[in-house]
Amino acid sequence: MPRVHNFGAGPAMLPEPVLQQAAAEMLDWHGSGMSVMEMSHRGKEFIAIHAQAEADLRELLSIPKNYKVLFLQGGAAAQFAVVPLNLLRGKDRADYALTGYWSKRAIAEARRYCKVNIAASSEDGKFSYAPAQDKWKLDPGAAYVHMTSNETIDGVEFHWVPETGDVPLVADASSHILSRPLDVGRFGLIYAGAQKNIGPAGLTIVIVREDLTGQADPHTPSVFDYKVQAEADSMTNTPATYAIYIAGLVFQWLKQLGGLARMEELNVAKAKLLYDYFDQTEFYYSPVAKSDRSRMNVPFRLRNDKLDTEFLKQAESAGLTQLKGHRAVGGMRASIYNAMPLSGVQALLDFMRQFERKHG
Amino acid sequence: MPRVHNFGAGPAMLPEPVLQQAAAEMLDWHGSGMSVMEMSHRGKEFIAIHAQAEADLRELLSIPKNYKVLFLQGGAAAQFAVVPLNLLRGKDRADYALTGYWSKRAIAEARRYCKVNIAASSEDGKFSYAPAQDKWKLDPGAAYVHMTSNETIDGVEFHWVPETGDVPLVADASSHILSRPLDVGRFGLIYAGAQKNIGPAGLTIVIVREDLTGQADPHTPSVFDYKVQAEADSMTNTPATYAIYIAGLVFQWLKQLGGLARMEELNVAKAKLLYDYFDQTEFYYSPVAKSDRSRMNVPFRLRNDKLDTEFLKQAESAGLTQLKGHRAVGGMRASIYNAMPLSGVQALLDFMRQFERKHG
Repeated sequence: MPRVHNFGAGPAMLPEPVLQQAAAEMLDWHGSGMSVMEMSHRGKEFIAIHAQAEADLRELLSIPKNYKVLFLQGGAAAQFAVVPLNLLRGKDRADYALTGYWSKRAIAEARRYCKVNIAASSEDGKFSYAPAQDKWKLDPGAAYVHMTSNETIDGVEFHWVPETGDVPLVADASSHILSRPLDVGRFGLIYAGAQKNIGPAGLTIVIVREDLTGQADPHTPSVFDYKVQAEADSMTNTPATYAIYIAGLVFQWLKQLGGLARMEELNVAKAKLLYDYFDQTEFYYSPVAKSDRSRMNVPFRLRNDKLDTEFLKQAESAGLTQLKGHRAVGGMRASIYNAMPLSGVQALLDFMRQFERKHG
Repeated sequence: MPRVHNFGAGPAMLPEPVLQQAAAEMLDWHGSGMSVMEMSHRGKEFIAIHAQAEADLRELLSIPKNYKVLFLQGGAAAQFAVVPLNLLRGKDRADYALTGYWSKRAIAEARRYCKVNIAASSEDGKFSYAPAQDKWKLDPGAAYVHMTSNETIDGVEFHWVPETGDVPLVADASSHILSRPLDVGRFGLIYAGAQKNIGPAGLTIVIVREDLTGQADPHTPSVFDYKVQAEADSMTNTPATYAIYIAGLVFQWLKQLGGLARMEELNVAKAKLLYDYFDQTEFYYSPVAKSDRSRMNVPFRLRNDKLDTEFLKQAESAGLTQLKGHRAVGGMRASIYNAMPLSGVQALLDFMRQFERKHG
């Protein structure tokens, strides 16, 4: 079967050249006589793969030297607990922005470890916007400020970085990391599950300012102590080696494409195609405030939601898959991560226009 | 380059037919138009892969119905913390058998959560044997008894299951799970990192008796609460989907081969080739007590250890890789997991004989 246009929110599409290379190298990586899956994580072959992946990620995001890059396991959901375990540093409270489904999950988990102050919220608007800077009520005694910089389900993206003074800013950037340049120095810590813009599920990347490590709660499992993993180059135990290898191929693909500035141009163009259409038609609409619309996750609705099922059925037949919105919010959602080509978005747009003509 | 004979301790060899199938399906799994890496973990395709993997594992190990099978992340090293977090259940202490490098690591981590009673130890014999049942000093008030049922580095394997009465027995079976049939009902919990006999690093399998779940310490990250994951079919967050898929292919390979009874016969034959040789020659020796020698990890020494470097160099040239013993113990080690064919062990034996003739 030809490859489908996969609009799933994650695990999501990967660049086809990456998959092709992975398939070609599956039984013998670079004449080593081994699959990357079969390599010792402490052998020279994998050490080289790991070091290259970290170097490329550092280059792509211009990560300052005083930040550690960790390749961990457990997903962003593990970080919901691991962030407070590492960053409370003896304090009893943290600030959280409540901006959608995933920040809600992060907050619920954080409440098991500390007092949570909701520093900003868009709950009053059904999570359809990003709270403006002047609405944030920050607590100077907070251990950190947590934000979900792109809400995968609600489709709300921060296109700016909140100012949090001396309190370190922590971002769950899972669903938009590497979609554009990022001023890492504005953050104390950035984490991201790999399965959207990085690689296979099972890998979690943590970028953490060095001075914030080393004061983990005694209950922190050692493999989740940032300091322990930083000192061991993420190898206090066996890391998810194959996932790191695939991530490394994705980083190389991004570099060949021209890096994150170029990637951003492409992502802006893709998202614009869809949002411009929503703003012209009466048939579909975007529930998200114009200034805060995500370039990665594009939720949309049919004004006549009785047509939802038919829309999804016909889309599936046309090779446009996983367009159903998350069960928590309903409607439709097109996730158009880095790996989604413009032609895929164009195919979706063509289908939507055709569907509108037929049913509008 | 032809595929090497890879004697690495893990991540380790995988069955070649598994790698071939993974390569062939990389861009399009079963006509889905997607790689398994690109599938939603909640989509029908991956749900089927996941369910089949669990069903096959249950069949291979004859896992009783009152045990949950969890596909987690973090490695066995995460379980060193997660086991006490889940199984202490309000108690303040646990029994541990100290039988080598990995039980030592498990004990060090457990001490961060509870009092550890060393119920049995082979430290007096430099971890060269498995302490006999009558040497165990069990504490009836212990929350559980922990053993490392195969010590990957020391090459000591329990070929019997200790009797622990009403106190649940917990085994780190990472390096010999699936190498032979196992009476799961004798254990409260069995855990294993995948990267030896199961699949890629980044997947951890936990088989846990249902009544032991549900009393996790409040500090347990939710993704590591056995009850939470059991109720969510290991999907309270996105699991390591691709690693689960590869593990599923390995399970099918094992079933086609004839299951674990047949696998055990093959493993006995492979290990016997090496150990019989060590017991005949004066040139090499096994440091492990005859009754407790591991069928999976075979440490051995040259009587003249000045030849070690030359041995490893020539072995590497002959396509026999990763024979160097762990840095903690030195010497040599041949890991001969399920995926290592008899022909690979024969090739090693031929090389060792030749080396002995030249240097003996």
